[in-house]
Amino acid sequence: MHIVETILNHKSIRSFKPDIIPAEVMNEILAAGSRASTTGNMQVYSVVVTKNQKIKNQLWESHFKQEMVKQAPVVLTFCADFNRFNKWCKVRQAVPGYDNFLSFFTAAIDALLAAQNVAIAAEAHKLGICYLGTTTYMAEKIIDILNLPKFVVPVTTLVVGYPANDPGLTDRLPLHGVIHNETYTDYSTEQIDEIYSEKESMELTRQLLKENNKETLAQVFTDNRYTKKDNVAFSQALLSVLKKQGFMNNEIV
Amino acid sequence: MHIVETILNHKSIRSFKPDIIPAEVMNEILAAGSRASTTGNMQVYSVVVTKNQKIKNQLWESHFKQEMVKQAPVVLTFCADFNRFNKWCKVRQAVPGYDNFLSFFTAAIDALLAAQNVAIAAEAHKLGICYLGTTTYMAEKIIDILNLPKFVVPVTTLVVGYPANDPGLTDRLPLHGVIHNETYTDYSTEQIDEIYSEKESMELTRQLLKENNKETLAQVFTDNRYTKKDNVAFSQALLSVLKKQGFMNNEIV
Repeated sequence: MHIVETILNHKSIRSFKPDIIPAEVMNEILAAGSRASTTGNMQVYSVVVTKNQKIKNQLWESHFKQEMVKQAPVVLTFCADFNRFNKWCKVRQAVPGYDNFLSFFTAAIDALLAAQNVAIAAEAHKLGICYLGTTTYMAEKIIDILNLPKFVVPVTTLVVGYPANDPGLTDRLPLHGVIHNETYTDYSTEQIDEIYSEKESMELTRQLLKENNKETLAQVFTDNRYTKKDNVAFSQALLSVLKKQGFMNNEIV
Repeated sequence: MHIVETILNHKSIRSFKPDIIPAEVMNEILAAGSRASTTGNMQVYSVVVTKNQKIKNQLWESHFKQEMVKQAPVVLTFCADFNRFNKWCKVRQAVPGYDNFLSFFTAAIDALLAAQNVAIAAEAHKLGICYLGTTTYMAEKIIDILNLPKFVVPVTTLVVGYPANDPGLTDRLPLHGVIHNETYTDYSTEQIDEIYSEKESMELTRQLLKENNKETLAQVFTDNRYTKKDNVAFSQALLSVLKKQGFMNNEIV
């Protein structure tokens, strides 16, 4: 399949066959991750490859008990990682200054670009993947489970395996809804209506409104799926993890 | 070319031919971006496509005057964007709770996964790309240039165009240096020596040590390329941008 076709055909897979992923396939998709662009070629990320069922069960607890975490043959945790780089500096008579927020964010970018390379390479091998947003919500527990040292923070997770079903393509906003020409043009109410009209008229949306007893799809997001209360709690937790892992020394000393 | 081959063959391109990118190619690579995974299918990112030379020149100033920003036919600024989603909520009788750090980071993940899809799709079309890490350092100026409203923060930039040269593959650490099995195994000094030995013995490294008058490659990073002083200044600037753009209300009110 042509490469862009593979990308355009992406579907998140949440149900997997028990089939093992051959070692050479696993190696190739991880190698694909390592070719992603990385700031200054520092490669300030790590990938933890978890196959052991006992550890996957612990991760499953952290990821809000989503069944796919137990079921997938492989769980990949992508981490912002300045630990390796810092250790290298220290044994090479260099004093690292990477204990700050900018360094965390730089390392997070490295980890996320590598993750998307792995996702596409996996799909090219007819594997299915799903990202777990719960990684940042539950970073502290994941740090415990995976023994992540200081200067390592998990930023996303991919479950990987052979798809047990074909969920079909998910809807997207029309392309012009997310693209701006030359500079940013803010959205008028009419434009918001137009951009969201297809999504709002879907059968899936009607079902969601009924199930959640809501008048609008936006309310399903604000009141049920991604609430301010949860977001604030997870913000505090994530900022506290960044501090604990050594990334919040943002003052010249 | 097979998809994984394209990924494994990635090189950052910093010099471009003047050739224009055909509209249908541009459209296809941006569409590839929009198929990337996105948290809860919220698509909380935007891409600003800049071709106008005057605006590119302004961006060039912000991106540390890197020549490729002026020269590339297209500059793509990928933004964490909750503005569109918030506006949608407000006109649909929903109260958005996305003015916090977790929401920013969620939106940044969306933007970065989309960026990497665009990068790969561009390379599949024989275009070359380079990421600009300066985006987060200079976010405040880029916000001004591109008129980014509240709840929009630029997180990365791609310059895109037809390559004027072939810089060859960049070195990477051996794959086992960035991969951990089951859980994280911290690095011993012997392992650090082994992982970095190939990089340290490269001719490029010898040149860098000479040019920078340093004893170790690590010192080139800590003393010249990514200094603590710069990192702290850019950390403060980025955190202040997050606050200004509305993403640092992390307390329940």
